[in-house]
Amino acid sequence: MNPTDIEVFLEAQKRRIEQQLPLYISTLSAPKKIKDAMNYSLEAGGKRIRPLLLVGTLHSFGQDEQIGIPAACAIEMIHTYSLIHDDLPSMDDDDLRRGKPTNHKIFGEAFAILAGDGLLTFSFQLISELTNDTISAEKKVALITELAKAAGPEGMVGGQVADMEGEGAQLTLEDLEYIHRHKTGKLLAYSVIAGAIIANATEEQLKKLEQFAHHLGIAFQIRDDILDIEGSVELIGKPIGSDIANHKNTYPALLTLDGAKEKLEYHINEAKKFLFSVEMKHDILEYMCNLIASRDH
Amino acid sequence: MNPTDIEVFLEAQKRRIEQQLPLYISTLSAPKKIKDAMNYSLEAGGKRIRPLLLVGTLHSFGQDEQIGIPAACAIEMIHTYSLIHDDLPSMDDDDLRRGKPTNHKIFGEAFAILAGDGLLTFSFQLISELTNDTISAEKKVALITELAKAAGPEGMVGGQVADMEGEGAQLTLEDLEYIHRHKTGKLLAYSVIAGAIIANATEEQLKKLEQFAHHLGIAFQIRDDILDIEGSVELIGKPIGSDIANHKNTYPALLTLDGAKEKLEYHINEAKKFLFSVEMKHDILEYMCNLIASRDH
Repeated sequence: MNPTDIEVFLEAQKRRIEQQLPLYISTLSAPKKIKDAMNYSLEAGGKRIRPLLLVGTLHSFGQDEQIGIPAACAIEMIHTYSLIHDDLPSMDDDDLRRGKPTNHKIFGEAFAILAGDGLLTFSFQLISELTNDTISAEKKVALITELAKAAGPEGMVGGQVADMEGEGAQLTLEDLEYIHRHKTGKLLAYSVIAGAIIANATEEQLKKLEQFAHHLGIAFQIRDDILDIEGSVELIGKPIGSDIANHKNTYPALLTLDGAKEKLEYHINEAKKFLFSVEMKHDILEYMCNLIASRDH
Repeated sequence: MNPTDIEVFLEAQKRRIEQQLPLYISTLSAPKKIKDAMNYSLEAGGKRIRPLLLVGTLHSFGQDEQIGIPAACAIEMIHTYSLIHDDLPSMDDDDLRRGKPTNHKIFGEAFAILAGDGLLTFSFQLISELTNDTISAEKKVALITELAKAAGPEGMVGGQVADMEGEGAQLTLEDLEYIHRHKTGKLLAYSVIAGAIIANATEEQLKKLEQFAHHLGIAFQIRDDILDIEGSVELIGKPIGSDIANHKNTYPALLTLDGAKEKLEYHINEAKKFLFSVEMKHDILEYMCNLIASRDH
């Protein structure tokens, strides 16, 4: 596909995911308040990179993307729960997220915690209930094991803990990569792996795609840190320079801005190297690499 | 089995579960702090009623209880996560739990939230990784679907939301039962259902056991409310009368203490009626009914 077609494809998939997310919530038999709180953050927008990586991977293997939509939505729910909890007063204490008041600013702390708990739990239900003849029970179990690892203490939760423990301390590049590999990288990687599992990828393909996603995840985080310095408040939806103000450990702080940009380029190139080594279509995932390297929000 | 043998059986199972819980945490590749915070609340003791209901149900079907230990531990982790989050300052703001400082009093709010998130997520991994030839992938998927329903917005999370929304308001008996059926009842019921799924129960047996567990769950909650009035602070490990002080909606407040006791007896009798209607051994689950009706902590 040419870049315009890829853009059209990704935009169409994004719309599908954004239409589906509130539908899942609306059919829940649960108190209105928790559904409102869950929906509020799901509908706050965002780039939907994780679900798009999943459907992009399915496409790369020549599979119908539609079968990946429920799992893609589950990943977006896990990502959204992590944002809600990270924004809490006792964590990062953020008032704004994507230009809108954070969940606890609207619903209060207790309901924000519960909305996160609800999204996390429901995402496992979504995957366990995937109904498609091509997704066997064995595949669902693999999808759930890998999701729990990516999101739990050995993944995202562990990364957030390491991030909070590292606050105010001078970290090495190794420490910083541990944090981001876990806090952001594992769920990004899972998005690719989940698509590959659904598409019946071989063990060897899975291993290469894991390397691809690993480098993509680090690149994603470096770009995030760079945007905190060079970005536009209107596009990012939160104040510029907040990392520096909060004494956050970032790649530019550790490597200088130029050093961070070099590192970004290195990881994007590595990601592409692994991507091209897998026998499948590459156009959409390559486009997404470039998007992540140059995104302005 | 006679009552003494049942006590010995339950005590041995409890020990097994309590030995296994920290082993699961210790093998996690995660920052020490999150493992400590998860373990702290898992090791705080408690009656372990949920995991014992699971292994008790397995025993009732003549199955080896050992195959249920990982799932039993997963349920105890979900229960523990819910206690950690419920105790938070923005929720019930409790300083003591089972006679020990609550999780956030020791580890701070942020790590308490993350410890809960970690336990919730890891419990799904535990069930998805159940390795036993008698537990097929289809069974694992069923166990995960039911767990997510019992713990999520349609279950425990929904019940906690309804409970918080009902605070300070005058609730009807119906409102109160909605809260407890969801907040406590669904996970208790799941404990029985999970055991029955692992034991290959029929659809009809599952339905009857669901009714059994439903009544048992309400009885459990009524006894809890009664203990808040009649209990001993040493045995309960938290202040007596805190429900009244916090204007909590309780069965005694709605029905008088005598009315609550009558209701408790009614639900225990209903539970036993459904229990006896299932063709299997009844001794252990009957014993647990009596335990729940008369427990002093």
